[in-house]
Amino acid sequence: MPDPSDAAPLTGPVEVIGAGLLGTSVALACRRAGLEVLLSDTAPDHVRTARALGAGRARTAADQPRLVVVAVPPAQLGTVIAEALVATAPYGAVVTDVGSVKSSPLAEVAALAPAEIERYVGSHPMAGSERSGPLAASAALFDGRPWAVTAHPSARADAVAAVTALAELCGGVPVELDPAAHDRAVARTSHVPHLMSALVAARLADAPAADLALSGQGVRDVTRVAAGDPRLYGQIVAGNADAVVELLGEVRAQLEVLIRAIGGGDRTALQGVLAEAVAGTRAIPGKHGAPDAPSSTVYVAVPDHPGELARLFADVGEIGVNIEDVRMDHDPGRQVGLAELVVTQDAADRLETSLESRGWVTHR
Amino acid sequence: MPDPSDAAPLTGPVEVIGAGLLGTSVALACRRAGLEVLLSDTAPDHVRTARALGAGRARTAADQPRLVVVAVPPAQLGTVIAEALVATAPYGAVVTDVGSVKSSPLAEVAALAPAEIERYVGSHPMAGSERSGPLAASAALFDGRPWAVTAHPSARADAVAAVTALAELCGGVPVELDPAAHDRAVARTSHVPHLMSALVAARLADAPAADLALSGQGVRDVTRVAAGDPRLYGQIVAGNADAVVELLGEVRAQLEVLIRAIGGGDRTALQGVLAEAVAGTRAIPGKHGAPDAPSSTVYVAVPDHPGELARLFADVGEIGVNIEDVRMDHDPGRQVGLAELVVTQDAADRLETSLESRGWVTHR
Repeated sequence: MPDPSDAAPLTGPVEVIGAGLLGTSVALACRRAGLEVLLSDTAPDHVRTARALGAGRARTAADQPRLVVVAVPPAQLGTVIAEALVATAPYGAVVTDVGSVKSSPLAEVAALAPAEIERYVGSHPMAGSERSGPLAASAALFDGRPWAVTAHPSARADAVAAVTALAELCGGVPVELDPAAHDRAVARTSHVPHLMSALVAARLADAPAADLALSGQGVRDVTRVAAGDPRLYGQIVAGNADAVVELLGEVRAQLEVLIRAIGGGDRTALQGVLAEAVAGTRAIPGKHGAPDAPSSTVYVAVPDHPGELARLFADVGEIGVNIEDVRMDHDPGRQVGLAELVVTQDAADRLETSLESRGWVTHR
Repeated sequence: MPDPSDAAPLTGPVEVIGAGLLGTSVALACRRAGLEVLLSDTAPDHVRTARALGAGRARTAADQPRLVVVAVPPAQLGTVIAEALVATAPYGAVVTDVGSVKSSPLAEVAALAPAEIERYVGSHPMAGSERSGPLAASAALFDGRPWAVTAHPSARADAVAAVTALAELCGGVPVELDPAAHDRAVARTSHVPHLMSALVAARLADAPAADLALSGQGVRDVTRVAAGDPRLYGQIVAGNADAVVELLGEVRAQLEVLIRAIGGGDRTALQGVLAEAVAGTRAIPGKHGAPDAPSSTVYVAVPDHPGELARLFADVGEIGVNIEDVRMDHDPGRQVGLAELVVTQDAADRLETSLESRGWVTHR
């Protein structure tokens, strides 16, 4: 694959098939960069809305896009990509997609349009929203997000370069992976974490209310992603069945180890799994891919009156300490929340002292 | 159990055995309320540090505490509680503890000090910190946190009242549960979520770096608690083995269902588990135990220059919209973060417009 610096600048027109959240966001980012954008969708409403947002114009039969971006639901990807390759064969457009699974659509394309596959390079921006549809779209959706570019062996170099240029033009960070490696990677970093989160959440569904009253921030964090749309995630996981099932098999084997260790009082085996897990949490890239610098958390009690969190923000802004990270920990049953402000170790004392002097109750 | 409003005001002296994070925090909260506090710890350093923080004075042989709070490591709880019951038998002190598992220490106490057990009532504040030791302690540690009070059938009513009063005096929210129900509840809301988080994190430990480059906020949330100390969590889980193993058995059965459904292409069974999970996430009590009000998230791109997040805070403070929740989403490999500001639906437009007019790039 070429060095990204060799990539030719992307020129339009760019056609976007599927004017939902992702497609319309790609269209808006291309328009922001001054490219002509052609829109199509089986739902005329979506095209109308996307046009009203300034995302481009409806595609006509005479148009000859240079790049086609397929942004349709997972189950339709292979068919729509193959159709786009065949339709654009006379003028040789590059075709990509933004689906979250790469091997199974590629296999469909290889079966449906084998002569055209050299112009196809898959991609996958790691971005989304809890909302969907063109109204939720934004040119800023991909800013700073990893964007996988998954070239297959017979992909043309100029097709890879065009898709890499699209990722960069949208503000994403291109990550080059082959399709199978991509699917194994998202099984590990997205699909299996989602399914495990779902298994924890499912055990809460019929739990007594008194049990759930003891819920802390930990179980909220673990189960947050499990709130996602079952239909969409069902399609995504089903499209990556092989990689997901293989990894779930590894998880099942280690779950057996855990059950035997806890049931049999084998503290060493239990701590072994927990220690491997700590190493895993440290393997996740930190901010900017660099190891995390030593940091310190200052906890601030925030009464739940309107404006209290805004007042805290204003005070932190005036104190001028650089906040690395922030989270809120809400407390069931009481009119107070805890704000967790993460700062470098050397700034923590000043932040805590300054907040206390302004009347906030803090602890570390 | 008595209505909390019947609780006699708690009077001192209160003895705290174990001047670590939790013990010293309880001591500071009691001092804040004007009570006399007596400190003891097998590590004289801890008592010295806690005294220097104003948490009380060292206990002497002549002291006769009214309430003893045992805050020692999980494995020593039963023995130390029983010793405290025997030592205080001449003047009838109430004894409690702040351990995270309740049935196994109770069984030990029943074996070691059966004649004194009516003066013992266990408790468990749902609070902690990533730090440990008396220097990390704070009188505010328990503010707004659930605090389980786990009376057993032969506990005296005045002992239950005293422990409930302690929870309230420390700023906690008392939740009454019997010891076995407590242990089942924390298996479900804390121990099993921790172990499942650990299973996901362990699969990251030896993953290729390119896979981990695709890590998004989801896997970070799911694995956050797995970073906790393996020795401490090993002790906690081992102390609650029965409830944890029972629940892990249910999880294993549902994992089998998932593996069969995904491997066999049974989309209905897969979506069934995912839908049960969505119901589970909704069962967790929202802010103040009430169902969550409709809310909207405004995403703001925050360049990673010193002071940018502080500047955002200052702007949000001036705009004056009440922020319900806030989180940071860091992006590996790029100098930008995303702040997620959660507000009520009717305030989202004003927040977004006001931020855009101040030069911030936002989306919804």
